[in-house]
Amino acid sequence: MPTETLPEHIVKSYDEDLRHLRDMTARMGGLAERQVADATRALVRRDTELATEVVQRDAQIDALEREIESFCVRLIALRQPMAQDLRVIIAAMKASNDLERIGDYARNAAKRAIVLASLPAIGSLAGFERMAQLVQENLKAAMDAFVTDDAEAARAVWEADEPVDAIYNGIFRELLTFMMEDPRNITAATHMLFIAKNLERIGDHTTNIAERIYYAVRGDTLPEERPKADQSAYAVVRPAGE
Amino acid sequence: MPTETLPEHIVKSYDEDLRHLRDMTARMGGLAERQVADATRALVRRDTELATEVVQRDAQIDALEREIESFCVRLIALRQPMAQDLRVIIAAMKASNDLERIGDYARNAAKRAIVLASLPAIGSLAGFERMAQLVQENLKAAMDAFVTDDAEAARAVWEADEPVDAIYNGIFRELLTFMMEDPRNITAATHMLFIAKNLERIGDHTTNIAERIYYAVRGDTLPEERPKADQSAYAVVRPAGE
Repeated sequence: MPTETLPEHIVKSYDEDLRHLRDMTARMGGLAERQVADATRALVRRDTELATEVVQRDAQIDALEREIESFCVRLIALRQPMAQDLRVIIAAMKASNDLERIGDYARNAAKRAIVLASLPAIGSLAGFERMAQLVQENLKAAMDAFVTDDAEAARAVWEADEPVDAIYNGIFRELLTFMMEDPRNITAATHMLFIAKNLERIGDHTTNIAERIYYAVRGDTLPEERPKADQSAYAVVRPAGE
Repeated sequence: MPTETLPEHIVKSYDEDLRHLRDMTARMGGLAERQVADATRALVRRDTELATEVVQRDAQIDALEREIESFCVRLIALRQPMAQDLRVIIAAMKASNDLERIGDYARNAAKRAIVLASLPAIGSLAGFERMAQLVQENLKAAMDAFVTDDAEAARAVWEADEPVDAIYNGIFRELLTFMMEDPRNITAATHMLFIAKNLERIGDHTTNIAERIYYAVRGDTLPEERPKADQSAYAVVRPAGE
């Protein structure tokens, strides 16, 4: 039965389904954003209570991922969507996957923040706050682009991850220097290294989401290589005087 | 038009499509497995040429992910699959996502192996070899379970990740001790920490794949919490004598 002959309320309800899917995904994005914000706040304020809340709240994100996935599967089975609608549904399903990973990284950062609160503080956390701020902004912009079907906004998010990588590289080198200066810094600095890496990975997953939105709207992929400044896998930092 | 009235060759060709999808996914799994093996071999033998090959070969995995995704989208649009077929298609799409991440972790490990080849060797790599061996076996078992629709084999993979986490915890503590003993070990030990973390994450993605296969075959999810031994996020290692 071609769409034009369907009673209007059925067509409307399909639009409502797609709207509901976008809303659920945006809600999941908002939750992930809050987890990143709270994990970072817990780190900076040495607030183990807040960190514990972040760890516990992760289950909500996981539940939303399952909800989105089954909603998508039902939508595909019942509505047999084509072209852009199908791409949007696939994008929502894949984005929920990325958001679940972002939630896991925030939870892991919160766990490490709990340990760090029991160790002597080292260095400044300003870099972490800036990184977290940037990835939150990008995540919010990505979810807005998804809700409004805005391919250009998605492309802007995809391009905006470079400063995140640059801050990560700076933190990486600084922490290695702290470790070399005093072995008592090593445990704390290692946990901080992993938190910085978590934030950097959250940035990467946000660009994944942006790519998926761009593809859903345009039916066309972004170039394979995006601007990327993370060179830390190749970094060599030597102890002073060596 | 109900299935029983379709000419047999059309039904066959749908089965062939699903078979092709399983084969593509298994091929992608085989490639990911090889990347893990070669990255680890490059690390152990300090073979920068092999490590460079691993870095370059990652593009093949990314291409396969895109191929699987568009094949799945076409399959959904043309065949309008229901129930188990739809679950298998969704599982293949999500598994290809996990395999792409596994490929990225192997590439990152290979990049770090290149740097490590230029630094003095520290500690034993036996733990890395064992971890890599275990995750490869699990990955292979997961792909076999996918091809043969074997939910019980998938559950076994899902349960088999615990020893991987246990080895990771051991490596984590050992590397922190090396760092504390001599600051000249810090750069190498940090890269090794991240490689160990990469292998641990590869193990986690393999359990994700196993969960998806179980769900595809049974239409029922595994319990939320799987046996997990990675406690490193909570680890505190203190310098000797403190």
